[in-house]
Amino acid sequence: MTATTLVEVSPRDGLQNEQTLLSVDEKVELIARSVAAGVRRIEAVSFVNPARVPQMAGAEEVMAQVPRSADVSYIGLVLNRRGLERALTAGVDEVNAVVVATDEFSTRNQGCTVAEGISAWMDIAAEARAAGVRTTVTIAASFGCPFSGEVDPAWVIELAARVADAGPDEIALADTIGVGVPAQVRTLAAGLTRVAPDVPQRWHFHNTRNTGYANALTALDTGAHALDASIGGFGGCPFAPAATGNIASEDLIYALNRSGVSTGVTLGTLADAAAWLGARLDKDVPALLGRAGNFPPDA
Amino acid sequence: MTATTLVEVSPRDGLQNEQTLLSVDEKVELIARSVAAGVRRIEAVSFVNPARVPQMAGAEEVMAQVPRSADVSYIGLVLNRRGLERALTAGVDEVNAVVVATDEFSTRNQGCTVAEGISAWMDIAAEARAAGVRTTVTIAASFGCPFSGEVDPAWVIELAARVADAGPDEIALADTIGVGVPAQVRTLAAGLTRVAPDVPQRWHFHNTRNTGYANALTALDTGAHALDASIGGFGGCPFAPAATGNIASEDLIYALNRSGVSTGVTLGTLADAAAWLGARLDKDVPALLGRAGNFPPDA
Repeated sequence: MTATTLVEVSPRDGLQNEQTLLSVDEKVELIARSVAAGVRRIEAVSFVNPARVPQMAGAEEVMAQVPRSADVSYIGLVLNRRGLERALTAGVDEVNAVVVATDEFSTRNQGCTVAEGISAWMDIAAEARAAGVRTTVTIAASFGCPFSGEVDPAWVIELAARVADAGPDEIALADTIGVGVPAQVRTLAAGLTRVAPDVPQRWHFHNTRNTGYANALTALDTGAHALDASIGGFGGCPFAPAATGNIASEDLIYALNRSGVSTGVTLGTLADAAAWLGARLDKDVPALLGRAGNFPPDA
Repeated sequence: MTATTLVEVSPRDGLQNEQTLLSVDEKVELIARSVAAGVRRIEAVSFVNPARVPQMAGAEEVMAQVPRSADVSYIGLVLNRRGLERALTAGVDEVNAVVVATDEFSTRNQGCTVAEGISAWMDIAAEARAAGVRTTVTIAASFGCPFSGEVDPAWVIELAARVADAGPDEIALADTIGVGVPAQVRTLAAGLTRVAPDVPQRWHFHNTRNTGYANALTALDTGAHALDASIGGFGGCPFAPAATGNIASEDLIYALNRSGVSTGVTLGTLADAAAWLGARLDKDVPALLGRAGNFPPDA
Protein backbone atom coordinates (compact mmCIF):
# COMPACT_ATOMS: atom_id res chain seq x y z
CA MET A 1 0.00 0.00 0.00
CA THR A 2 1.44 3.38 -0.97
CA ALA A 3 -0.94 5.70 0.88
CA THR A 4 -3.08 5.64 3.97
CA THR A 5 -4.99 8.03 6.21
CA LEU A 6 -3.94 8.94 9.72
CA VAL A 7 -6.86 9.44 12.09
CA GLU A 8 -5.60 11.62 14.92
CA VAL A 9 -7.21 10.49 18.18
CA SER A 10 -5.23 12.50 20.72
CA PRO A 11 -8.09 14.93 21.52
CA ARG A 12 -10.28 11.95 22.49
CA ASP A 13 -8.44 8.70 23.32
CA GLY A 14 -5.24 10.61 24.06
CA LEU A 15 -6.86 12.72 26.77
CA GLN A 16 -9.69 10.67 28.20
CA ASN A 17 -7.61 8.91 30.84
CA GLU A 18 -5.29 11.78 31.74
CA GLN A 19 -5.44 13.25 35.23
CA THR A 20 -4.72 16.73 33.91
CA LEU A 21 -7.82 18.25 32.32
CA LEU A 22 -7.18 20.38 29.26
CA SER A 23 -9.23 23.53 28.77
CA VAL A 24 -11.42 23.99 25.71
CA ASP A 25 -8.85 26.40 24.30
CA GLU A 26 -6.06 23.86 24.78
CA LYS A 27 -8.11 21.14 23.10
CA VAL A 28 -8.79 23.47 20.18
CA GLU A 29 -5.08 24.24 19.94
CA LEU A 30 -4.24 20.52 19.90
CA ILE A 31 -6.73 20.03 17.08
CA ALA A 32 -5.45 23.09 15.19
CA ARG A 33 -1.89 21.79 15.48
CA SER A 34 -3.01 18.46 14.01
CA VAL A 35 -4.66 20.25 11.10
CA ALA A 36 -1.52 22.36 10.60
CA ALA A 37 0.50 19.13 10.40
CA GLY A 38 -1.70 17.97 7.53
CA VAL A 39 -4.01 15.59 9.40
CA ARG A 40 -7.39 15.42 7.68
CA ARG A 41 -9.42 13.17 10.01
CA ILE A 42 -9.51 13.91 13.72
CA GLU A 43 -11.45 12.24 16.53
CA ALA A 44 -11.97 15.60 18.14
CA VAL A 45 -14.58 15.05 20.85
CA SER A 46 -16.61 12.48 22.73
CA PHE A 47 -20.28 12.97 23.52
CA VAL A 48 -20.26 10.93 26.69
CA ASN A 49 -21.61 12.23 29.96
CA PRO A 50 -19.04 14.80 31.21
CA ALA A 51 -20.07 14.01 34.78
CA ARG A 52 -18.69 10.51 34.22
CA VAL A 53 -15.73 11.47 31.99
CA PRO A 54 -14.70 15.02 32.92
CA GLN A 55 -11.79 14.88 30.47
CA MET A 56 -14.34 14.97 27.66
CA ALA A 57 -16.29 17.99 28.92
CA GLY A 58 -16.84 20.92 26.61
CA ALA A 59 -17.36 18.92 23.42
CA GLU A 60 -19.83 21.46 22.00
CA GLU A 61 -17.51 24.39 22.79
CA VAL A 62 -14.57 22.58 21.17
CA MET A 63 -16.57 21.86 18.01
CA ALA A 64 -17.67 25.50 17.83
CA GLN A 65 -14.05 26.68 17.70
CA VAL A 66 -12.14 24.14 15.60
CA PRO A 67 -10.74 25.41 12.31
CA ARG A 68 -13.26 24.32 9.68
CA SER A 69 -12.16 23.36 6.21
CA ALA A 70 -13.83 21.33 3.48
CA ASP A 71 -11.05 18.73 3.54
CA VAL A 72 -10.90 18.21 7.30
CA SER A 73 -13.31 15.73 8.85
CA TYR A 74 -14.09 15.96 12.57
CA ILE A 75 -15.23 12.80 14.28
CA GLY A 76 -17.33 12.70 17.43
CA LEU A 77 -17.50 9.57 19.55
CA VAL A 78 -21.07 8.62 20.47
CA LEU A 79 -22.30 5.73 22.58
CA ASN A 80 -26.04 6.31 22.51
CA ARG A 81 -28.92 8.32 21.06
CA ARG A 82 -28.40 11.21 23.46
CA GLY A 83 -24.75 11.44 22.40
CA LEU A 84 -25.73 11.29 18.75
CA GLU A 85 -28.17 14.17 19.16
CA ARG A 86 -25.45 16.26 20.78
CA ALA A 87 -23.02 15.30 17.99
CA LEU A 88 -25.43 16.27 15.24
CA THR A 89 -26.22 19.57 16.93
CA ALA A 90 -22.51 20.29 17.39
CA GLY A 91 -21.93 19.72 13.69
CA VAL A 92 -19.48 16.83 13.53
CA ASP A 93 -18.55 15.48 10.11
CA GLU A 94 -18.53 11.87 11.26
CA VAL A 95 -19.77 9.91 14.22
CA ASN A 96 -17.89 6.91 15.54
CA ALA A 97 -19.74 4.40 17.71
CA VAL A 98 -18.16 1.67 19.82
CA VAL A 99 -19.24 -1.92 20.27
CA VAL A 100 -17.17 -3.83 22.82
CA ALA A 101 -16.36 -7.46 21.99
CA THR A 102 -16.92 -8.97 25.45
CA ASP A 103 -19.82 -8.65 27.88
CA GLU A 104 -17.60 -8.08 30.89
CA PHE A 105 -15.62 -5.21 29.35
CA SER A 106 -18.76 -3.77 27.72
CA THR A 107 -20.65 -3.76 31.00
CA ARG A 108 -17.83 -2.12 32.92
CA ASN A 109 -16.93 0.37 30.21
CA GLN A 110 -20.26 1.29 28.68
CA GLY A 111 -22.83 -0.08 31.10
CA CYS A 112 -24.40 -2.44 28.55
CA THR A 113 -24.00 -5.96 27.22
CA VAL A 114 -22.54 -6.69 23.79
CA ALA A 115 -26.05 -7.31 22.44
CA GLU A 116 -27.24 -3.99 23.84
CA GLY A 117 -24.18 -2.31 22.34
CA ILE A 118 -25.01 -3.69 18.91
CA SER A 119 -28.59 -2.53 19.31
CA ALA A 120 -27.41 0.97 20.29
CA TRP A 121 -25.11 1.00 17.24
CA MET A 122 -28.03 0.06 14.96
CA ASP A 123 -30.04 3.00 16.30
CA ILE A 124 -27.11 5.39 15.99
CA ALA A 125 -26.29 4.23 12.46
CA ALA A 126 -29.85 4.62 11.22
CA GLU A 127 -30.31 8.07 12.69
CA ALA A 128 -26.86 9.34 11.67
CA ARG A 129 -27.33 8.13 8.11
CA ALA A 130 -30.72 9.83 8.01
CA ALA A 131 -28.96 13.02 9.07
CA GLY A 132 -26.43 12.58 6.26
CA VAL A 133 -23.43 12.18 8.54
CA ARG A 134 -20.64 9.71 7.87
CA THR A 135 -20.93 6.83 10.34
CA THR A 136 -18.20 4.49 11.53
CA VAL A 137 -17.99 1.84 14.22
CA THR A 138 -15.11 0.54 16.33
CA ILE A 139 -15.12 -2.95 17.82
CA ALA A 140 -13.18 -2.56 21.07
CA ALA A 141 -11.16 -5.32 22.73
CA SER A 142 -10.93 -7.18 19.43
CA PHE A 143 -7.49 -8.59 20.33
CA GLY A 144 -8.04 -9.45 23.97
CA CYS A 145 -10.03 -8.42 27.03
CA PRO A 146 -8.61 -7.34 30.39
CA PHE A 147 -11.34 -9.32 32.16
CA SER A 148 -12.29 -12.25 29.93
CA GLY A 149 -8.80 -12.86 28.52
CA GLU A 150 -8.61 -14.33 25.03
CA VAL A 151 -11.12 -13.08 22.46
CA ASP A 152 -11.80 -15.53 19.64
CA PRO A 153 -11.16 -13.90 16.25
CA ALA A 154 -14.15 -15.82 14.87
CA TRP A 155 -16.37 -14.05 17.43
CA VAL A 156 -14.94 -10.66 16.47
CA ILE A 157 -15.69 -11.37 12.83
CA GLU A 158 -19.22 -12.49 13.73
CA LEU A 159 -19.67 -9.16 15.53
CA ALA A 160 -18.25 -7.34 12.52
CA ALA A 161 -20.75 -9.07 10.25
CA ARG A 162 -23.59 -7.97 12.54
CA VAL A 163 -22.49 -4.34 12.75
CA ALA A 164 -21.92 -4.34 8.98
CA ASP A 165 -25.67 -4.92 8.53
CA ALA A 166 -26.19 -1.28 9.47
CA GLY A 167 -24.08 -0.15 6.51
CA PRO A 168 -21.20 1.64 8.25
CA ASP A 169 -18.88 3.81 6.19
CA GLU A 170 -15.94 2.11 7.92
CA ILE A 171 -15.31 -0.62 10.49
CA ALA A 172 -12.40 -0.35 12.91
CA LEU A 173 -10.94 -3.14 15.00
CA ALA A 174 -9.29 -1.94 18.19
CA ASP A 175 -6.60 -3.51 20.33
CA THR A 176 -7.84 -1.51 23.29
CA ILE A 177 -5.42 -2.94 25.85
CA GLY A 178 -2.39 -3.42 23.58
CA VAL A 179 -2.01 -7.19 23.60
CA GLY A 180 -2.20 -8.02 19.88
CA VAL A 181 0.42 -9.30 17.46
CA PRO A 182 0.67 -9.13 13.65
CA ALA A 183 -0.57 -12.70 13.21
CA GLN A 184 -3.87 -11.63 14.81
CA VAL A 185 -4.08 -8.61 12.52
CA ARG A 186 -3.76 -10.86 9.49
CA THR A 187 -6.42 -13.26 10.75
CA LEU A 188 -8.85 -10.48 11.63
CA ALA A 189 -8.24 -8.52 8.41
CA ALA A 190 -8.92 -11.59 6.30
CA GLY A 191 -12.12 -12.30 8.25
CA LEU A 192 -13.28 -8.72 8.00
CA THR A 193 -12.70 -8.69 4.26
CA ARG A 194 -14.70 -11.91 3.97
CA VAL A 195 -17.81 -10.66 5.82
CA ALA A 196 -17.69 -7.00 4.77
CA PRO A 197 -15.69 -6.86 1.54
CA ASP A 198 -16.83 -3.37 0.58
CA VAL A 199 -16.37 -1.67 3.94
CA PRO A 200 -13.08 0.24 4.41
CA GLN A 201 -11.00 -1.00 7.34
CA ARG A 202 -9.54 1.17 10.06
CA TRP A 203 -7.32 -0.10 12.91
CA HIS A 204 -6.67 1.19 16.40
CA PHE A 205 -3.54 0.02 18.20
CA HIS A 206 -1.97 0.62 21.57
CA ASN A 207 1.73 0.06 22.13
CA THR A 208 1.28 -1.29 25.65
CA ARG A 209 3.57 -4.28 25.04
CA ASN A 210 5.65 -2.91 22.16
CA THR A 211 3.63 -4.62 19.44
CA GLY A 212 1.58 -1.60 18.31
CA TYR A 213 3.75 -0.41 15.44
CA ALA A 214 4.30 -3.92 14.11
CA ASN A 215 0.52 -4.34 14.14
CA ALA A 216 -0.06 -1.03 12.36
CA LEU A 217 2.44 -1.79 9.60
CA THR A 218 0.91 -5.25 9.20
CA ALA A 219 -2.58 -3.74 8.93
CA LEU A 220 -1.24 -1.55 6.15
CA ASP A 221 -0.04 -4.68 4.35
CA THR A 222 -3.54 -6.11 4.61
CA GLY A 223 -5.06 -3.03 2.98
CA ALA A 224 -5.89 -0.73 5.89
CA HIS A 225 -7.75 2.33 4.71
CA ALA A 226 -6.92 4.28 7.87
CA LEU A 227 -4.90 3.98 11.08
CA ASP A 228 -5.66 5.64 14.42
CA ALA A 229 -2.73 7.23 16.26
CA SER A 230 -2.27 9.79 18.99
CA ILE A 231 0.21 12.68 19.06
CA GLY A 232 3.01 11.84 21.48
CA GLY A 233 1.62 8.37 22.16
CA PHE A 234 -0.50 9.63 25.02
CA GLY A 235 -3.64 7.76 26.03
CA GLY A 236 -3.14 4.84 28.35
CA CYS A 237 -5.86 2.36 29.08
CA PRO A 238 -7.18 2.63 32.66
CA PHE A 239 -6.87 -1.16 32.88
CA ALA A 240 -3.11 -1.09 32.17
CA PRO A 241 -1.78 1.63 34.41
CA ALA A 242 1.74 2.97 33.78
CA ALA A 243 1.73 1.40 30.36
CA THR A 244 2.30 3.21 27.09
CA GLY A 245 -0.86 4.31 25.36
CA ASN A 246 -1.86 4.71 21.76
CA ILE A 247 0.72 4.32 19.05
CA ALA A 248 2.22 7.77 18.54
CA SER A 249 1.33 9.69 15.40
CA GLU A 250 4.88 10.92 14.84
CA ASP A 251 6.49 7.51 15.29
CA LEU A 252 3.92 5.98 12.94
CA ILE A 253 4.46 8.71 10.34
CA TYR A 254 8.24 8.20 10.62
CA ALA A 255 7.81 4.49 9.83
CA LEU A 256 5.38 5.23 6.99
CA ASN A 257 7.65 7.90 5.49
CA ARG A 258 10.61 5.51 5.55
CA SER A 259 8.40 2.82 3.98
CA GLY A 260 7.38 5.00 1.06
CA VAL A 261 3.76 5.30 2.23
CA SER A 262 2.38 8.79 1.83
CA THR A 263 0.03 10.36 4.35
CA GLY A 264 0.29 14.08 3.66
CA VAL A 265 1.38 14.69 7.25
CA THR A 266 4.43 16.77 8.22
CA LEU A 267 6.57 15.01 10.80
CA GLY A 268 8.19 18.05 12.41
CA THR A 269 4.88 19.78 13.08
CA LEU A 270 3.53 16.63 14.73
CA ALA A 271 6.63 16.25 16.90
CA ASP A 272 6.33 19.89 17.98
CA ALA A 273 2.69 19.26 18.90
CA ALA A 274 3.76 16.26 20.98
CA ALA A 275 6.25 18.34 22.95
CA TRP A 276 3.57 21.01 23.45
CA LEU A 277 1.04 18.39 24.66
CA GLY A 278 3.59 16.80 27.00
CA ALA A 279 4.14 20.21 28.60
CA ARG A 280 0.37 20.73 28.98
CA LEU A 281 -0.04 17.31 30.61
CA ASP A 282 3.21 17.70 32.58
CA LYS A 283 4.34 14.29 31.37
CA ASP A 284 7.22 12.81 29.43
CA VAL A 285 6.26 12.13 25.84
CA PRO A 286 6.03 8.34 25.33
CA ALA A 287 6.85 8.65 21.61
CA LEU A 288 10.49 8.12 20.68
CA LEU A 289 10.91 10.34 17.63
CA GLY A 290 11.16 13.57 19.57
CA ARG A 291 14.10 12.16 21.52
CA ALA A 292 15.83 10.22 18.73
CA GLY A 293 15.26 12.68 15.88
CA ASN A 294 14.34 12.10 12.28
CA PHE A 295 16.48 10.11 9.88
CA PRO A 296 18.28 11.15 7.85
CA PRO A 297 18.69 14.09 10.22
CA ASP A 298 17.98 16.65 7.49
CA ALA A 299 14.89 14.81 6.20
CA MET B 1 8.41 -19.62 10.92
CA THR B 2 7.47 -21.56 14.04
CA ALA B 3 10.75 -21.40 15.95
CA THR B 4 13.71 -19.09 16.24
CA THR B 5 16.70 -18.52 18.50
CA LEU B 6 17.07 -15.57 20.82
CA VAL B 7 20.64 -14.31 21.12
CA GLU B 8 20.85 -12.46 24.42
CA VAL B 9 23.15 -9.46 24.00
CA SER B 10 22.58 -7.61 27.27
CA PRO B 11 25.99 -8.52 28.75
CA ARG B 12 27.69 -6.90 25.74
CA ASP B 13 25.56 -4.44 23.75
CA GLY B 14 23.28 -3.90 26.72
CA LEU B 15 26.09 -2.72 28.98
CA GLN B 16 28.72 -1.20 26.73
CA ASN B 17 27.30 2.31 26.75
CA GLU B 18 26.08 2.41 30.33
CA GLN B 19 27.66 4.84 32.76
CA THR B 20 27.30 2.39 35.63
CA LEU B 21 29.96 -0.31 35.43
CA LEU B 22 28.85 -3.77 36.48
CA SER B 23 31.25 -5.96 38.43
CA VAL B 24 32.39 -9.31 37.11
CA ASP B 25 30.06 -11.01 39.60
CA GLU B 26 27.12 -8.94 38.42
CA LYS B 27 27.87 -9.74 34.78
CA VAL B 28 28.05 -13.42 35.63
CA GLU B 29 24.72 -13.16 37.44
CA LEU B 30 23.13 -11.47 34.40
CA ILE B 31 24.39 -14.30 32.20
CA ALA B 32 23.26 -16.96 34.69
CA ARG B 33 19.80 -15.39 34.80
CA SER B 34 19.64 -15.56 30.98
CA VAL B 35 20.60 -19.23 31.07
CA ALA B 36 18.00 -19.87 33.77
CA ALA B 37 15.39 -18.28 31.50
CA GLY B 38 16.23 -20.80 28.80
CA VAL B 39 18.45 -18.65 26.57
CA ARG B 40 20.96 -20.82 24.73
CA ARG B 41 23.12 -18.25 22.88
CA ILE B 42 24.55 -15.30 24.78
CA GLU B 43 26.89 -12.54 23.61
CA ALA B 44 28.62 -12.63 26.97
CA VAL B 45 31.78 -10.56 26.55
CA SER B 46 33.72 -8.26 24.25
CA PHE B 47 37.46 -8.54 23.76
CA VAL B 48 38.03 -4.90 23.02
CA ASN B 49 40.60 -2.83 24.85
CA PRO B 50 39.19 -2.25 28.38
CA ALA B 51 41.14 1.01 28.55
CA ARG B 52 38.94 2.27 25.71
CA VAL B 53 35.70 0.53 26.77
CA PRO B 54 35.81 0.08 30.55
CA GLN B 55 32.31 -1.39 30.53
CA MET B 56 33.78 -4.47 28.84
CA ALA B 57 36.62 -5.02 31.31
CA GLY B 58 37.02 -8.41 32.96
CA ALA B 59 36.03 -10.52 29.93
CA GLU B 60 38.36 -13.36 30.88
CA GLU B 61 37.11 -13.37 34.48
CA VAL B 62 33.50 -13.42 33.30
CA MET B 63 34.13 -16.33 30.95
CA ALA B 64 35.89 -18.26 33.76
CA GLN B 65 32.75 -18.07 35.92
CA VAL B 66 29.77 -18.47 33.58
CA PRO B 67 27.69 -21.61 34.06
CA ARG B 68 28.93 -24.02 31.40
CA SER B 69 26.60 -26.45 29.71
CA ALA B 70 26.80 -28.36 26.44
CA ASP B 71 23.70 -26.65 25.08
CA VAL B 72 24.67 -23.05 25.93
CA SER B 73 26.88 -21.18 23.49
CA TYR B 74 28.84 -18.16 24.71
CA ILE B 75 29.78 -15.57 22.12
CA GLY B 76 32.73 -13.20 22.43
CA LEU B 77 32.89 -10.05 20.31
CA VAL B 78 36.26 -9.60 18.63
CA LEU B 79 37.44 -6.79 16.39
CA ASN B 80 41.01 -7.91 15.65
CA ARG B 81 43.63 -10.65 15.98
CA ARG B 82 44.55 -9.62 19.51
CA GLY B 83 40.91 -9.86 20.56
CA LEU B 84 40.59 -13.24 18.89
CA GLU B 85 43.58 -14.62 20.77
CA ARG B 86 42.04 -13.46 24.05
CA ALA B 87 38.69 -15.01 23.07
CA LEU B 88 40.22 -18.36 22.21
CA THR B 89 42.20 -18.42 25.44
CA ALA B 90 39.10 -17.51 27.43
CA GLY B 91 37.25 -20.42 25.86
CA VAL B 92 34.30 -18.82 24.06
CA ASP B 93 32.05 -21.09 22.00
CA GLU B 94 31.62 -18.55 19.20
CA VAL B 95 33.33 -15.39 18.07
CA ASN B 96 31.37 -12.58 16.47
CA ALA B 97 33.25 -10.02 14.40
CA VAL B 98 31.90 -6.67 13.22
CA VAL B 99 32.26 -5.01 9.84
CA VAL B 100 30.78 -1.51 9.70
CA ALA B 101 28.99 -0.57 6.47
CA THR B 102 30.30 3.00 6.13
CA ASP B 103 33.82 4.40 6.29
CA GLU B 104 32.87 7.28 8.55
CA PHE B 105 31.18 5.15 11.20
CA SER B 106 33.85 2.44 10.90
CA THR B 107 36.65 4.94 11.41
CA ARG B 108 35.01 6.52 14.45
CA ASN B 109 33.84 3.28 16.00
CA GLN B 110 36.62 0.83 15.21
CA GLY B 111 39.48 3.01 13.98
CA CYS B 112 39.59 1.44 10.53
CA THR B 113 38.04 1.81 7.09
CA VAL B 114 35.44 -0.61 5.75
CA ALA B 115 38.10 -2.29 3.61
CA GLU B 116 40.36 -2.69 6.63
CA GLY B 117 37.40 -4.04 8.60
CA ILE B 118 36.77 -6.70 5.96
CA SER B 119 40.44 -7.59 5.96
CA ALA B 120 40.42 -7.95 9.76
CA TRP B 121 37.33 -10.15 9.50
CA MET B 122 39.06 -12.39 6.94
CA ASP B 123 41.99 -12.88 9.34
CA ILE B 124 39.69 -13.52 12.29
CA ALA B 125 37.54 -15.97 10.35
CA ALA B 126 40.51 -18.00 9.11
CA GLU B 127 42.14 -18.24 12.51
CA ALA B 128 38.91 -18.94 14.40
CA ARG B 129 37.92 -21.67 11.98
CA ALA B 130 41.38 -23.20 12.35
CA ALA B 131 40.79 -23.20 16.10
CA GLY B 132 37.45 -24.96 15.58
CA VAL B 133 35.32 -22.13 16.97
CA ARG B 134 32.00 -21.11 15.47
CA THR B 135 32.46 -17.79 13.66
CA THR B 136 29.83 -15.18 12.88
CA VAL B 137 29.95 -11.64 11.54
CA THR B 138 27.71 -8.64 12.03
CA ILE B 139 27.46 -5.87 9.44
CA ALA B 140 26.82 -2.75 11.50
CA ALA B 141 24.90 0.31 10.28
CA SER B 142 23.21 -1.79 7.59
CA PHE B 143 20.04 0.33 7.78
CA GLY B 144 21.56 3.80 8.06
CA CYS B 145 24.60 5.64 9.36
CA PRO B 146 24.59 8.43 11.94
CA PHE B 147 27.26 10.26 9.90
CA SER B 148 26.79 9.32 6.23
CA GLY B 149 22.99 9.08 6.36
CA GLU B 150 21.37 6.64 3.94
CA VAL B 151 23.12 3.32 3.35
CA ASP B 152 22.31 1.70 0.00
CA PRO B 153 20.97 -1.84 0.53
CA ALA B 154 22.86 -2.90 -2.62
CA TRP B 155 26.11 -1.85 -0.91
CA VAL B 156 25.20 -3.81 2.24
CA ILE B 157 24.56 -6.89 0.13
CA GLU B 158 27.87 -6.38 -1.70
CA LEU B 159 29.58 -6.28 1.70
CA ALA B 160 27.68 -9.39 2.76
CA ALA B 161 28.88 -11.20 -0.36
CA ARG B 162 32.47 -10.26 0.48
CA VAL B 163 32.30 -11.34 4.12
CA ALA B 164 30.55 -14.55 3.02
CA ASP B 165 33.74 -15.50 1.14
CA ALA B 166 35.30 -16.30 4.50
CA GLY B 167 32.65 -18.94 5.18
CA PRO B 168 30.93 -17.53 8.28
CA ASP B 169 28.58 -19.77 10.25
CA GLU B 170 26.06 -16.89 10.29
CA ILE B 171 25.75 -13.35 8.95
CA ALA B 172 23.91 -10.70 10.96
CA LEU B 173 22.65 -7.38 9.67
CA ALA B 174 22.43 -4.72 12.34
CA ASP B 175 20.30 -1.59 12.56
CA THR B 176 22.84 -0.08 14.92
CA ILE B 177 21.12 3.29 15.30
CA GLY B 178 17.50 2.14 15.08
CA VAL B 179 16.34 3.81 11.88
CA GLY B 180 15.14 0.84 9.83
CA VAL B 181 11.67 -0.23 8.74
CA PRO B 182 10.23 -3.60 7.69
CA ALA B 183 10.48 -2.76 3.98
CA GLN B 184 14.27 -2.50 4.40
CA VAL B 185 14.35 -5.83 6.23
CA ARG B 186 12.59 -7.49 3.31
CA THR B 187 14.95 -5.94 0.75
CA LEU B 188 18.07 -6.86 2.72
CA ALA B 189 16.88 -10.38 3.56
CA ALA B 190 16.18 -11.11 -0.10
CA GLY B 191 19.59 -9.77 -1.10
CA LEU B 192 21.35 -11.74 1.61
CA THR B 193 19.59 -14.93 0.55
CA ARG B 194 20.67 -14.26 -3.04
CA VAL B 195 24.39 -13.82 -2.32
CA ALA B 196 24.72 -16.25 0.59
CA PRO B 197 21.86 -18.74 0.29
CA ASP B 198 23.34 -21.28 2.67
CA VAL B 199 24.38 -18.92 5.47
CA PRO B 200 21.90 -18.59 8.38
CA GLN B 201 20.68 -15.05 8.95
CA ARG B 202 20.68 -13.24 12.28
CA TRP B 203 19.30 -9.73 12.82
CA HIS B 204 20.09 -7.04 15.34
CA PHE B 205 17.55 -4.29 15.94
CA HIS B 206 17.32 -1.23 18.13
CA ASN B 207 13.97 0.29 19.00
CA THR B 208 15.24 3.87 18.87
CA ARG B 209 12.30 5.08 16.75
CA ASN B 210 9.73 2.39 17.67
CA THR B 211 10.36 0.26 14.58
CA GLY B 212 12.53 -2.42 16.21
CA TYR B 213 9.85 -4.97 17.00
CA ALA B 214 8.17 -4.58 13.61
CA ASN B 215 11.56 -5.20 12.03
CA ALA B 216 12.23 -8.27 14.17
CA LEU B 217 8.86 -9.84 13.37
CA THR B 218 9.40 -9.09 9.69
CA ALA B 219 12.84 -10.71 9.79
CA LEU B 220 11.17 -13.78 11.21
CA ASP B 221 8.81 -13.81 8.24
CA THR B 222 11.81 -13.76 5.92
CA GLY B 223 13.36 -16.80 7.59
CA ALA B 224 15.54 -15.34 10.35
CA HIS B 225 17.54 -18.06 12.05
CA ALA B 226 18.24 -15.90 15.11
CA LEU B 227 17.33 -12.52 16.60
CA ASP B 228 19.46 -10.42 18.94
CA ALA B 229 17.72 -8.85 21.91
CA SER B 230 18.73 -7.40 25.26
CA ILE B 231 17.08 -8.01 28.62
CA GLY B 232 15.10 -4.91 29.62
CA GLY B 233 15.87 -3.17 26.32
CA PHE B 234 19.01 -1.60 27.71
CA GLY B 235 21.83 -0.61 25.39
CA GLY B 236 21.48 2.77 23.78
CA CYS B 237 23.70 3.88 20.94
CA PRO B 238 26.12 6.62 21.98
CA PHE B 239 25.12 8.47 18.81
CA ALA B 240 21.46 8.60 19.83
CA PRO B 241 21.51 9.76 23.43
CA ALA B 242 18.36 9.41 25.52
CA ALA B 243 16.92 7.01 22.98
CA THR B 244 15.72 3.50 23.67
CA GLY B 245 18.32 0.84 23.02
CA ASN B 246 18.14 -2.74 21.82
CA ILE B 247 14.81 -4.42 21.40
CA ALA B 248 14.01 -5.98 24.77
CA SER B 249 14.22 -9.75 25.11
CA GLU B 250 11.04 -10.00 27.17
CA ASP B 251 8.97 -7.83 24.83
CA LEU B 252 10.24 -9.83 21.84
CA ILE B 253 9.48 -13.15 23.55
CA TYR B 254 5.99 -11.88 24.42
CA ALA B 255 5.35 -11.12 20.74
CA LEU B 256 6.81 -14.46 19.64
CA ASN B 257 4.80 -16.41 22.23
CA ARG B 258 1.59 -14.73 21.09
CA SER B 259 2.53 -15.45 17.47
CA GLY B 260 3.00 -19.17 18.09
CA VAL B 261 6.78 -19.03 17.58
CA SER B 262 8.66 -21.15 20.08
CA THR B 263 11.98 -20.06 21.56
CA GLY B 264 12.31 -22.16 24.70
CA VAL B 265 12.60 -19.01 26.79
CA THR B 266 10.53 -18.39 29.95
CA LEU B 267 9.04 -14.90 29.97
CA GLY B 268 8.72 -14.39 33.72
CA THR B 269 12.36 -15.24 34.41
CA LEU B 270 13.45 -12.76 31.73
CA ALA B 271 11.23 -10.02 33.13
CA ASP B 272 12.63 -10.64 36.62
CA ALA B 273 16.15 -10.34 35.20
CA ALA B 274 15.20 -7.03 33.58
CA ALA B 275 13.99 -5.63 36.91
CA TRP B 276 17.19 -6.85 38.56
CA LEU B 277 19.35 -5.25 35.83
CA GLY B 278 17.44 -1.97 36.04
CA ALA B 279 18.17 -1.85 39.77
CA ARG B 280 21.89 -2.54 39.15
CA LEU B 281 22.05 0.24 36.55
CA ASP B 282 19.78 2.53 38.61
CA LYS B 283 17.62 3.10 35.54
CA ASP B 284 14.03 2.63 34.52
CA VAL B 285 13.60 -0.48 32.40
CA PRO B 286 12.83 0.60 28.80
CA ALA B 287 10.93 -2.64 28.07
CA LEU B 288 7.16 -2.47 28.48
CA LEU B 289 6.25 -6.00 29.53
CA GLY B 290 7.36 -5.58 33.14
CA ARG B 291 4.97 -2.63 33.48
CA ALA B 292 2.07 -3.93 31.42
CA GLY B 293 2.19 -7.58 32.43
CA ASN B 294 1.74 -10.72 30.40
CA PHE B 295 -1.46 -11.57 28.52
CA PRO B 296 -3.55 -13.38 29.34
CA PRO B 297 -2.55 -12.42 32.87
CA ASP B 298 -2.23 -16.04 34.00
CA ALA B 299 -0.19 -17.11 30.94
